Amino acid sequence: MRLVVLNCNTSTGMTERIGATARGAASSGTDVIVIQPHWGPESVEGYYDGFVGAAAMLDRMTVFDEPIDGLVIAGFGEHGREGLRELLDVPVVDIAEAAAVMALLIGPRYGIVTTLPRACAQIRDNLRVAGLLDRCASIRALDRGVLGVDADREETQRRFIQVAARVIDDGAEVICLGSTAFTGMAERLTGELELPVVDGIAAAVQLVESCHRLGLRTSKYLTWAPPRSKVRTGWPVSALQAGSQG
Amino acid sequence: MRLVVLNCNTSTGMTERIGATARGAASSGTDVIVIQPHWGPESVEGYYDGFVGAAAMLDRMTVFDEPIDGLVIAGFGEHGREGLRELLDVPVVDIAEAAAVMALLIGPRYGIVTTLPRACAQIRDNLRVAGLLDRCASIRALDRGVLGVDADREETQRRFIQVAARVIDDGAEVICLGSTAFTGMAERLTGELELPVVDGIAAAVQLVESCHRLGLRTSKYLTWAPPRSKVRTGWPVSALQAGSQG
Amino acid sequence: MRLVVLNCNTSTGMTERIGATARGAASSGTDVIVIQPHWGPESVEGYYDGFVGAAAMLDRMTVFDEPIDGLVIAGFGEHGREGLRELLDVPVVDIAEAAAVMALLIGPRYGIVTTLPRACAQIRDNLRVAGLLDRCASIRALDRGVLGVDADREETQRRFIQVAARVIDDGAEVICLGSTAFTGMAERLTGELELPVVDGIAAAVQLVESCHRLGLRTSKYLTWAPPRSKVRTGWPVSALQAGSQG
Amino acid sequence: MRLVVLNCNTSTGMTERIGATARGAASSGTDVIVIQPHWGPESVEGYYDGFVGAAAMLDRMTVFDEPIDGLVIAGFGEHGREGLRELLDVPVVDIAEAAAVMALLIGPRYGIVTTLPRACAQIRDNLRVAGLLDRCASIRALDRGVLGVDADREETQRRFIQVAARVIDDGAEVICLGSTAFTGMAERLTGELELPVVDGIAAAVQLVESCHRLGLRTSKYLTWAPPRSKVRTGWPVSALQAGSQG
Amino acid sequence: MRLVVLNCNTSTGMTERIGATARGAASSGTDVIVIQPHWGPESVEGYYDGFVGAAAMLDRMTVFDEPIDGLVIAGFGEHGREGLRELLDVPVVDIAEAAAVMALLIGPRYGIVTTLPRACAQIRDNLRVAGLLDRCASIRALDRGVLGVDADREETQRRFIQVAARVIDDGAEVICLGSTAFTGMAERLTGELELPVVDGIAAAVQLVESCHRLGLRTSKYLTWAPPRSKVRTGWPVSALQAGSQG
Amino acid sequence: MRLVVLNCNTSTGMTERIGATARGAASSGTDVIVIQPHWGPESVEGYYDGFVGAAAMLDRMTVFDEPIDGLVIAGFGEHGREGLRELLDVPVVDIAEAAAVMALLIGPRYGIVTTLPRACAQIRDNLRVAGLLDRCASIRALDRGVLGVDADREETQRRFIQVAARVIDDGAEVICLGSTAFTGMAERLTGELELPVVDGIAAAVQLVESCHRLGLRTSKYLTWAPPRSKVRTGWPVSALQAGSQG
Repeated sequence: MRLVVLNCNTSTGMTERIGATARGAASSGTDVIVIQPHWGPESVEGYYDGFVGAAAMLDRMTVFDEPIDGLVIAGFGEHGREGLRELLDVPVVDIAEAAAVMALLIGPRYGIVTTLPRACAQIRDNLRVAGLLDRCASIRALDRGVLGVDADREETQRRFIQVAARVIDDGAEVICLGSTAFTGMAERLTGELELPVVDGIAAAVQLVESCHRLGLRTSKYLTWAPPRSKVRTGWPVSALQAGSQG
Repeated sequence: MRLVVLNCNTSTGMTERIGATARGAASSGTDVIVIQPHWGPESVEGYYDGFVGAAAMLDRMTVFDEPIDGLVIAGFGEHGREGLRELLDVPVVDIAEAAAVMALLIGPRYGIVTTLPRACAQIRDNLRVAGLLDRCASIRALDRGVLGVDADREETQRRFIQVAARVIDDGAEVICLGSTAFTGMAERLTGELELPVVDGIAAAVQLVESCHRLGLRTSKYLTWAPPRSKVRTGWPVSALQAGSQG
Repeated sequence: MRLVVLNCNTSTGMTERIGATARGAASSGTDVIVIQPHWGPESVEGYYDGFVGAAAMLDRMTVFDEPIDGLVIAGFGEHGREGLRELLDVPVVDIAEAAAVMALLIGPRYGIVTTLPRACAQIRDNLRVAGLLDRCASIRALDRGVLGVDADREETQRRFIQVAARVIDDGAEVICLGSTAFTGMAERLTGELELPVVDGIAAAVQLVESCHRLGLRTSKYLTWAPPRSKVRTGWPVSALQAGSQG
Repeated sequence: MRLVVLNCNTSTGMTERIGATARGAASSGTDVIVIQPHWGPESVEGYYDGFVGAAAMLDRMTVFDEPIDGLVIAGFGEHGREGLRELLDVPVVDIAEAAAVMALLIGPRYGIVTTLPRACAQIRDNLRVAGLLDRCASIRALDRGVLGVDADREETQRRFIQVAARVIDDGAEVICLGSTAFTGMAERLTGELELPVVDGIAAAVQLVESCHRLGLRTSKYLTWAPPRSKVRTGWPVSALQAGSQG
Repeated sequence: MRLVVLNCNTSTGMTERIGATARGAASSGTDVIVIQPHWGPESVEGYYDGFVGAAAMLDRMTVFDEPIDGLVIAGFGEHGREGLRELLDVPVVDIAEAAAVMALLIGPRYGIVTTLPRACAQIRDNLRVAGLLDRCASIRALDRGVLGVDADREETQRRFIQVAARVIDDGAEVICLGSTAFTGMAERLTGELELPVVDGIAAAVQLVESCHRLGLRTSKYLTWAPPRSKVRTGWPVSALQAGSQG
Repeated sequence: MRLVVLNCNTSTGMTERIGATARGAASSGTDVIVIQPHWGPESVEGYYDGFVGAAAMLDRMTVFDEPIDGLVIAGFGEHGREGLRELLDVPVVDIAEAAAVMALLIGPRYGIVTTLPRACAQIRDNLRVAGLLDRCASIRALDRGVLGVDADREETQRRFIQVAARVIDDGAEVICLGSTAFTGMAERLTGELELPVVDGIAAAVQLVESCHRLGLRTSKYLTWAPPRSKVRTGWPVSALQAGSQG
């Protein structure tokens, strides 16, 4: 199958790191294509970036002209999920719901550790809308920006463990990596924390593969039917920008 | 005060109609500026359009360079609200929460009548995130697109009354107009239905004015602090498009 | 418009202070009439006083014989709201729901600081019934009675700031003054706490004015239809007491 | 033990009927004293009457000067419960929560049939505050006033069965009599409906007796501590009325 | 009436202690029969034991061939309740819901102190399914096994008081004994904690007696209708074991 | 990997059918072992059978002495899940939560069609405890027993489509097969209903495989730590029965 993993931001370094995790999680026989939007923020932190990133992801997939079998949205708790489900009829899974779903299967309550405190409310709302908040014990943050995480990964892991300890104290028995910036750290953190740590990118890859194998596609019955045909001025943005550059 | 009313779509006709309602609801002394995005869908129906419209509204306000005292988002249940609250420090109110808030004050449970059935889930999620869903009795649709509503307003009102009767049967004692396409119909529908009908545009204008008078501005404490400074490639879109046209 | 602000207790000093805030929040052209019950407790602290106060407020409005355009109930989280909505057909807003509603528009979650710990459960129930509890992060108390607050306002403000710090730590990004005893302190507390502080009296005045301007009146459809005609022995109390004194 | 059953209205006929049920449900050795307020509405239908009745019940118990061991509040879904819990330190049970509690023990979901449609929202709020709403499948009404029920009990039972059928269709497997007006009908309705029918008066008598036997009294720890000592002008009303008549 | 109290485990010592509490709580005229399963764990701690114990209790009652009028399930938060309600048509009450129900009547919020931390999630789920979790403020554990509790009751009471203090700090105003291992301690703990302490065994005995007196039996309408007639290989286990021993 | 699929009942025919679906859903390289309890009901319908079946499944896995990598519980909404998670440290997934999880990824709300009306409450409770109920629109039944379904599969499919139409009308946009008795029908029903139909057995196989590939095992941190070491009289039942037959 052809599986697209779409980073929500425009940092090539993060796209690569996301790709490494996704490829590591994919089954043999799955062709993983990792892409990023043609425009938008270098990191998504907060609602403003989240909504810009959502449109940039929709733009990216609107101009994406190859056949695919599934999509992973690599942004933890970001916007755009339901729009991509309208646009595509293949399965679309975002990494926050993927992490939550896997966590539910292996522990009574889960917790999330993210980058910035301002993201906690956003993640909570994302999971509430996804119907997966009931068994979330806690969402806490390192107080460190997405790009800062990359700069010093040792220090990030040290802080992650401190914050995770509080999340466990809040009742979590499984921890989810609450940002793509943490990808690649799950194994080591599992060892140090002595309980399961879920990487949403890997989880989402598996879930999209599963839907594909089971023949499950996005329901087009009503809410996520294809976007209606209409005038959309200046859209898709990247097609126009490409045109204007020609 | 200077109050901006921002239509979520690019239909000039709807922007005008929204403006008429907003001006009718504004107090003397309020300068109402009605605008629309520089790009995006001619009507917002569903999540895809909703996320494109959200970014287009953020784009519009990012390049808006006049001082303002408050913002009304004229899209019922659409995305973008929290992003605009990050961008601006004046009060920002969307018309779905405005309608719900006013409805709560005058009835034990309220209901919503919207255009298309596919919008019902989206409106429900918007109100759930806004914390205003508990006393919502029902959300139902006319099964008629936003632009179709405009084409035959008599027929629209007739159908609205039929659907509202079902919403009342579900337990609503106040009805909210669930789309900007219905603006201007509240008074007549109130008469026919014999219970209060709330127009969210008018309600939002009043609520923003109230915040302004009370000196209440968007909390910048944490979650809705200003967007972080960073590289946002190709953003704002309209500045670049304007540039490329030059 | 003629707006009545009804204190829930019989302390003339507090009625005056409430009146000052209400007049300060009212638009020019609004005639603010501030009244208190003819009987009942000098302060409302707890359920017993709350239910006595509720009946005393209903009594006061039953014998109030001037035409009015709206009512503000000046008791934070007190009983009686729905009874007054039955009795009157103009908009009726209580200050707890008014504060919550305004707080929702300007922050992701709000908190409340009240006088006595025993009031916290009551306020929580009031907001749950009002359908406004979902985004309430915390309700905490100074451990100081309503009348004690008046005696030493400097000390009260100092303690308020301490308790508010805990409420903010619980997740609130907007603070509501949880008692009429705190009225007049919002501006100074906003400065000290560096986030918005909402005075429910001022908020309720604005909301009732808004309903009036929008032509929105209490729905008389079913639940809040006028009280049924029947024998009510010894009621209204104040009319009889007045008679017995004659 | 001495058990007081307090009717919420001033209809002597209904007080007698309530007394008959209470005495029938009481254990031998329980001294049942059935009383009604000294003032207030002849029937409680809606919030206005509910709040007047709440104060009248508080008044009645404030001037009640005999020692008692427990109190039953005979008003289905009416106000005042928490105020009486503050005033007294013996167990206080209202008949709506009593009916719900017993229903939970004998069926997966319960339903309520009440007199007037306007009472449904009030009952729902009462049970929500009591924390007993989760397993309530439905609340429906006969559309017949409290006093009308008494006038033609045959017709009332016929209609009750029709409405109960809808409540069962909504998922209820136990039915609660949703008004004191229905007391005395449980046995016959159980036979006709072929599922358990709970009379809240009888249930509350049993629950208060149980608390008494177990030595459980109202917690005076914080929220329901005794009313604070203070000036309450013109209160209790009945003492003053009695005085003025002297 | 004949009331069976069924211990969920096979410790004869605990069955005796449970019996002492049950007999102390029963009314004169109630014949209390205390039994335990023919097989299963000596103490129930966690889900594995809980499900084994549930089947062992069902087995015990399947082979119980005397007529009875009610059943108390003496296991706090354990499984099997609904199965026993299917099997029997007399009232069946478990001690967790009994404790919660009594606690609701005498305090605004209740808390639970149990033996092992691993039991907290299980108790929470039990009460959620029972629809009684809304007013539960906190569930905490002593970190001491069921049988360890028996070994040193002085030390247990000391620790109980420490943990109860935290539960009270979480908002509880009534405390429930969260394990049958604590039975017999309620009176002394009430004295030390200065708020009501509920023993679920005693509460359940009273509730079953109440149902019996009121003529309320388990609804057989649908969900808890008798088990369907079918082949159940090797079941009931104890009948076969008895046979194999013959 | 070695994956065990455990039927909750003792019908060999159903075990085979379950095995066929499981093998069809498993990846190449997965060794699927399909087993059933050594004792217990031939079909699980209602709580009594559910609790007997839960213990029989725990018994089966207690005496299962081969190494495995994951477990699927093939009973829709049945008990025992958390007990098996305590016993094993490999991933354990039941088919109700598996179906719900997959449904959430491909539709805004899902519905369930099951066999008997009495099972609806049980399924609802299972999903509530699993934290997956929020987006469940409806659960309805065919009114046909598990074994009856097998007898006439044409008639069953015809009735399934009728009931599914009501579930869709309730708001579902994805349908879950609510009993193992329906396994094998998903493809045909998807075609007839024109929206996705999820078979929980296939979904659970995929989810357990995914956990295995991601290295996610059941959290042993606290709640689902291994059962404590203790005396369990007469347990495991099948070991003793085997012995007595020797």
